[in-house]
Amino acid sequence: MGEARDKAELAQKAATSLAKLDSISRNQALLAMADALEREQDYLLAENALDVAAAQEKGIEESLIDRLLLNEGRISAIADALRTLAGQNDPIGALTEGRTLYNGLRLRRIRVPLGVVAMIYEARPNVTADAAGLCLKTANACLLRGGSIANHSNISMTRVLYEAGLAAGLPEFWLQSIETTDRAATTELMTLTGLIDVLIPRGSASLIRTTVENARVPVIETGEGNCHLYIHEAADPEIIVPIALNAKTQRPGVCNAIESVLIDAVVAEHLAPPLLEALAEADVLIHADETIFALAQGLGDKVSRQTVQAEAADWGREYLCLELSIKCVSGVEEAIEHINRYSTHHSEAILSQDYAAVSRFLEEVDSAAVYANASTRFTDGGEFGLGAEIGISTQKLHARGPMGLDALTSTKFIIEGDGQIRA
Amino acid sequence: MGEARDKAELAQKAATSLAKLDSISRNQALLAMADALEREQDYLLAENALDVAAAQEKGIEESLIDRLLLNEGRISAIADALRTLAGQNDPIGALTEGRTLYNGLRLRRIRVPLGVVAMIYEARPNVTADAAGLCLKTANACLLRGGSIANHSNISMTRVLYEAGLAAGLPEFWLQSIETTDRAATTELMTLTGLIDVLIPRGSASLIRTTVENARVPVIETGEGNCHLYIHEAADPEIIVPIALNAKTQRPGVCNAIESVLIDAVVAEHLAPPLLEALAEADVLIHADETIFALAQGLGDKVSRQTVQAEAADWGREYLCLELSIKCVSGVEEAIEHINRYSTHHSEAILSQDYAAVSRFLEEVDSAAVYANASTRFTDGGEFGLGAEIGISTQKLHARGPMGLDALTSTKFIIEGDGQIRA
Repeated sequence: MGEARDKAELAQKAATSLAKLDSISRNQALLAMADALEREQDYLLAENALDVAAAQEKGIEESLIDRLLLNEGRISAIADALRTLAGQNDPIGALTEGRTLYNGLRLRRIRVPLGVVAMIYEARPNVTADAAGLCLKTANACLLRGGSIANHSNISMTRVLYEAGLAAGLPEFWLQSIETTDRAATTELMTLTGLIDVLIPRGSASLIRTTVENARVPVIETGEGNCHLYIHEAADPEIIVPIALNAKTQRPGVCNAIESVLIDAVVAEHLAPPLLEALAEADVLIHADETIFALAQGLGDKVSRQTVQAEAADWGREYLCLELSIKCVSGVEEAIEHINRYSTHHSEAILSQDYAAVSRFLEEVDSAAVYANASTRFTDGGEFGLGAEIGISTQKLHARGPMGLDALTSTKFIIEGDGQIRA
Repeated sequence: MGEARDKAELAQKAATSLAKLDSISRNQALLAMADALEREQDYLLAENALDVAAAQEKGIEESLIDRLLLNEGRISAIADALRTLAGQNDPIGALTEGRTLYNGLRLRRIRVPLGVVAMIYEARPNVTADAAGLCLKTANACLLRGGSIANHSNISMTRVLYEAGLAAGLPEFWLQSIETTDRAATTELMTLTGLIDVLIPRGSASLIRTTVENARVPVIETGEGNCHLYIHEAADPEIIVPIALNAKTQRPGVCNAIESVLIDAVVAEHLAPPLLEALAEADVLIHADETIFALAQGLGDKVSRQTVQAEAADWGREYLCLELSIKCVSGVEEAIEHINRYSTHHSEAILSQDYAAVSRFLEEVDSAAVYANASTRFTDGGEFGLGAEIGISTQKLHARGPMGLDALTSTKFIIEGDGQIRA
C-alpha cells in the first residue's frame, strides 16, 4: 500500500465523476487553470528556483537545467497551451460508427474516456500542465510521476492546477502527483493492474525502455527516433541541402530530427559534396562510411575536420545532437532494408522525383510517418492537424505516430432494442 | 534461445513479405487452406483422436473434451469460416483519414498490418484455423501457442494450413505453432519485446490473468464476462422472462451470458416471481439476496429447491453455467454503482420504458457494450456487423468489445511534398 496505489484508487473514483462532466465544464476549468498559473507565477517560479539551485549544486549539465527552468515567458506559453486546448473540439461522445442491425437493434459506438491515465516523465515541468490539460480535456483522471530533480516544480504546479480545477467544479482527486522521491513508487505505479488504464512514459530512451520492460499495466511507448533521410539517385538536387539541414539542425534534440542519411552510391560523388559542406558549415559531426569518408577528405579543412569514420553501432544510434551518420546504398531496395533494420520506426523520408522509387519507399518502409520530398521534422500532432499532442507513439497498438486527443479515449457500444433475443 | 524466440524471429521476417502481398493473393490462400482442411480430414481426425483419447485417460471433464473434439461437421464449419473470411473486405490499405496541410503537404493515414500476432489458447482446435485465417486476412504473421492437451490437433492443423498457404504463394513461416509442451515456452513468448506486436490470450479467466500479469509485450485482454441484467421498475413485463432466459440459458458457458440480475425493490414482489419460476424451470440455480430468497420460499418446491442464499462473493462471480445471482436495488443509481463495481465491463442491459432511466444507464455504465431492452447475448463481432471476430476485448486500449479485423491492424502516416521544411 504505497502512495501510488492509494492515489490510483482515488483517481479511479474521480474518473467516474469526470466522465459525467459536460464539455463546457471541462473547458471552463481549463481556462481557470491557465489563469491560475499566471496568477500564481511568483510561487511557481520560487519553487522552480529551488529545483534549479539544487540541480546546479549537483553539477547537472546545462541542457538539462535549461529544460527544468521556468520563467515568465514559459509560464505564459504553458497557460496559452491550456487555453488553446479549451478551444479544441471535444472528442468525448463523438460517434465513431453506427447502424441498425438485421433484427432492428440500433447500434452506436461512441468515444468515452479511458479512465485513469498515468504519466511518468523527467525534468520538464511543462509536462505537468500539458498532461493535466490533455487528461481533463478527455475527461480522464490524471496521475503524474515527475522526475525527482523537478519535484518542487511539479508539486507546486500540480497544486495550482488542482485547486483551480476544484474551484471550477472538477471532482476531488481529478489530478494528483506522486510526491515521494522514493523510486519504489514508480515501480508500484507500473504494476497497478486494474487501476491504471494507460501509462505513458515521456522522456529519455532509458525511461521508456524501463517502463516497457517493467510495466504490467497497458503502456504507450513514445518518442525514440532514429530517423532517416534517403537521397535517391533521382532526387531533386535543389531540395537536398535545405531538407537535410532542417531535419538535422533546426532542433537536433527532438525525436523527429534525422540521425542518418542514406545516399545512392551512383550519385554520391555528385550530390554528397554540397551536402557535406553544408552540414560541416552547420557544425554537424559526420559519421561517414568508407566512400563518404574518402570523399570528405577532398573537400577542404572544415569538412574533413567534421567527418569521422562510422562504426557499425552508428547505424542504430539516436544522437539527439549535431551529429549524424551517412552511408551509401545501392538503391531503394537496400535503403528500405537498412531503414527497416535500424530504424526505431518513427519518421523516414525519401528525396526522389522517380515515381516507382517513391511509391515503393512509402509502401515498404515500416514507420509511423513516411515522407516523400519533405523534412521529417513535420511529425507532430499540431503539424498533422491533430491538435494538441500527447506524444509520438512508436508502437503499433492503440496509437501510432503523433497522438492527438483521440489517443486518450476508448469507445463503447450502445445498443437499443425492443425486446430482442438471440436466435 | 528457445523455440518461441526462434519462431518469433522467423515470423518477423515473414511479416515483411506478407505486408507486400495483395488482397487477391491472401484471399486465394484462404480458399486453398479451407480446401486443404477438408481434403486432409482423415489425418486431422486421427491426430485429434490421439488428444481425445489421452484426455479421456486423464479423466478430463466431458465439457472440455467436447471442446477439444473434431468431427467432419466441425471441420467443414472451420473451412467455411475461412471461405467467409476470404469474401470480406480487406482492411489493409484502407484510408482512415487524409488532408492537405497548410503548407501543401498531402497527408494520408492508411491501415497496415500489426506485424507479428501471437495467440495463446487452450483446448479448442478451431482457434488454430481461426487465428491463422484472421492473421492472414490482415497480412500479419501468426505465431500460435495452443494448449498441451490439444497438441496433436494443433500441430497437425497448423501443418495442413501452413503447407496449403505455402503452395498458394505465401512466404515461409507465415504461420507457426510452438510445438514443445514445455511451459517455459509460454513464458518466453510473453517476454519477446520487439518481436511480438500483440499477444492475444483466448480461453479461461486464469489464462488471461496470467498473460496480463506476466507479459512484457502488448496484450489484448479478452473474454471474462460478469454480465448484468437490470430490471428497472418501469420494465415492460412482457420482455423480462424471454430476455433473462435467452441471456442466461441459451449458451451458459459464453462470456456474453448474464451472471447477475438486479431488480428494483419496489417491483420485486410483482415482477420477480414469474422470473424465478421460469429460471427454476430451466434448471438455473439462483443465488438470491435476502428479499428474493424470502420471495422464492413462497413459490413452490421447484423454485425453493433451485434457490440458495447469496454470499458476498457471488456478486463478482462468473458462473459460466446454469447459475446466476439476483439482488434487489433501490433504483437506477444503485444499479449503476453495483455494476460498475462488480462487472468485468463486458456487457450489461437495462430493461425499462423510462426514458431518463435508460439514458442514464446507457451513459454511466462503464462497459464495452451497454444495452437497453435487449439480450446481452448479441455482443459478438458477427452480430454487430463487424464480420469475423478475433475475440471480445474487455480492456480500453486499442480495442474494446467485439474485435473485427480492424483490431489486427495499425496505421501509418504517409506525407508527400515538394521540398517542404519546417519553419
